[in-house]
Amino acid sequence: MGEFDLISRYFHRPARRNPLGVGDDCALLAPAPGRQLAVSCDMLVEGRHFLSTVDPARLGHKALAVNLSDLAACGAAPLAFTLALSLPSADETWLAGFARGMWALADAHACELVGGDTTRGPLNVCITVFGEVPAGQALLRSGARAGDDVWVSGSLGDARLALEAFRGTLALPADTFAAARARMETPTPRVALGRALRGIASSAVDLSDGLLGDLGHVLAASGVGATLHTAAILPLLAAGPSACDAAWALTCVLAGGDDYELAFTAPPGRHDAVEAAGRASETPVTRIGRIDATPGLRLLAADGSPLQQRFDGFDHFA
Amino acid sequence: MGEFDLISRYFHRPARRNPLGVGDDCALLAPAPGRQLAVSCDMLVEGRHFLSTVDPARLGHKALAVNLSDLAACGAAPLAFTLALSLPSADETWLAGFARGMWALADAHACELVGGDTTRGPLNVCITVFGEVPAGQALLRSGARAGDDVWVSGSLGDARLALEAFRGTLALPADTFAAARARMETPTPRVALGRALRGIASSAVDLSDGLLGDLGHVLAASGVGATLHTAAILPLLAAGPSACDAAWALTCVLAGGDDYELAFTAPPGRHDAVEAAGRASETPVTRIGRIDATPGLRLLAADGSPLQQRFDGFDHFA
Repeated sequence: MGEFDLISRYFHRPARRNPLGVGDDCALLAPAPGRQLAVSCDMLVEGRHFLSTVDPARLGHKALAVNLSDLAACGAAPLAFTLALSLPSADETWLAGFARGMWALADAHACELVGGDTTRGPLNVCITVFGEVPAGQALLRSGARAGDDVWVSGSLGDARLALEAFRGTLALPADTFAAARARMETPTPRVALGRALRGIASSAVDLSDGLLGDLGHVLAASGVGATLHTAAILPLLAAGPSACDAAWALTCVLAGGDDYELAFTAPPGRHDAVEAAGRASETPVTRIGRIDATPGLRLLAADGSPLQQRFDGFDHFA
Repeated sequence: MGEFDLISRYFHRPARRNPLGVGDDCALLAPAPGRQLAVSCDMLVEGRHFLSTVDPARLGHKALAVNLSDLAACGAAPLAFTLALSLPSADETWLAGFARGMWALADAHACELVGGDTTRGPLNVCITVFGEVPAGQALLRSGARAGDDVWVSGSLGDARLALEAFRGTLALPADTFAAARARMETPTPRVALGRALRGIASSAVDLSDGLLGDLGHVLAASGVGATLHTAAILPLLAAGPSACDAAWALTCVLAGGDDYELAFTAPPGRHDAVEAAGRASETPVTRIGRIDATPGLRLLAADGSPLQQRFDGFDHFA
């Protein structure tokens, strides 16, 4: 199977919104009048972002999901994506699985593949995603204000729990491991919630490197600080308190990485609107703290005393 | 140096046209009214697209150049790009060189870096580029018509000549090698020519896999064939006829790959307009054949007799 056969067999579909579709030197996109194009790009490398043993369908899902998660954080509606793929070989079973997982998620979000590149090399998946947002209404990292509530969607820490089980650091019951592994391998991009939060949230970020690290970007961009309640955050580990000891649970929920949930802020007066956005998008939302004027991130234990432990977000080069 | 230091040191500049700049979950882009966004994506892998010994500044240039070349083929004006980079380590000398080469070319084309991703892994550079084109005026592969002239820009085959010298298949005089190597490592995207050809050329494609292979895409998309004159094509090897034997010269110019010139078609009545576009963009253009109604690609030798030799375009998986 040659390069062009590979593309036409697995990655070619008739164009819908894109006037050209896959195959010309460029794809052509035009956002609707009054809308901006939101663009994001994530690269997944074997051994860093996924294990070599991962089910290719789950990898196809994840490669697109982590990109859709960036659109979600901006409140953008998915439109299209490009796929660049470096493959050690043209393995048809692998390609069929990868394409199946990718297309299922793309179809669920009406997100069209408009172009890309395939080459031989170490396994690497690079997707650039395009979404639409009404001009001036994108959710940004810079909008958090002192007094805002800090919220987070869904559950936190289970992806890290699964990774530690793979590493052998922890032992998990089989069904707990299967559920945590599904969170790690097939994250759910919170696209509907992000769109529902436009005009409600004052800032948002998607959680790829861990809550504390990613929320830190919001605080830095907004010039504020925050106080978070670990008593509100610890129950967000879907695996529950019996899955691991308390120190591991805290590391997983605060600095686990690979969550692909949204952390966002909103004025206290928009509390009901946030909860309504969560219900409308069928996404759990939990208030976990408050934005302060004082820079820095403060963690409070269940009894209200400050937690001194240091948690580092994931850094590929640290 | 951590991941975020690395980004801020080498890949962060104040935003110009992009309302956000590097750092939020998405970049925001809005093409001007009446314009479409042209999007393309190319991934460069060490050992496939560049040698491990390449000067990082030249690699930074090439990674962006091959993407700008796709915009050129559509007649689009460069606007912005995203950069995803997988690096074995955060080597500051390498990064400074790579960034210098990349920024020099980006600045020359007023093309803004709006986002990206950095990770640790085997060296891989994936750029997605965005350009603007008046709606409906993009040059496409599907517009060639029987009777059109076939044209090519610049010179052909020198990049392949340099590759063969690196491989030891050929020996070149030092200055010939240096010039051919510069063609391989720092290709010139024909952006100004592509824009000048809007409304003149009936189809266009950029030459990355070799003239015959890439022109084959135009013929397939347009449902036509072509007859090319090798006597017009052979002199396009800038290294000249003394650089290698005639068979190698023919392979290099017809199926060399890595040329990043434009091949395009235009009605014979637009001959003067094509030459004027070449002069206006300071880009040599050469007529090399004609489009036929009969499918297939026919090569004629200097005496007008058909050439039977088979030339394969570059295919990563063939």
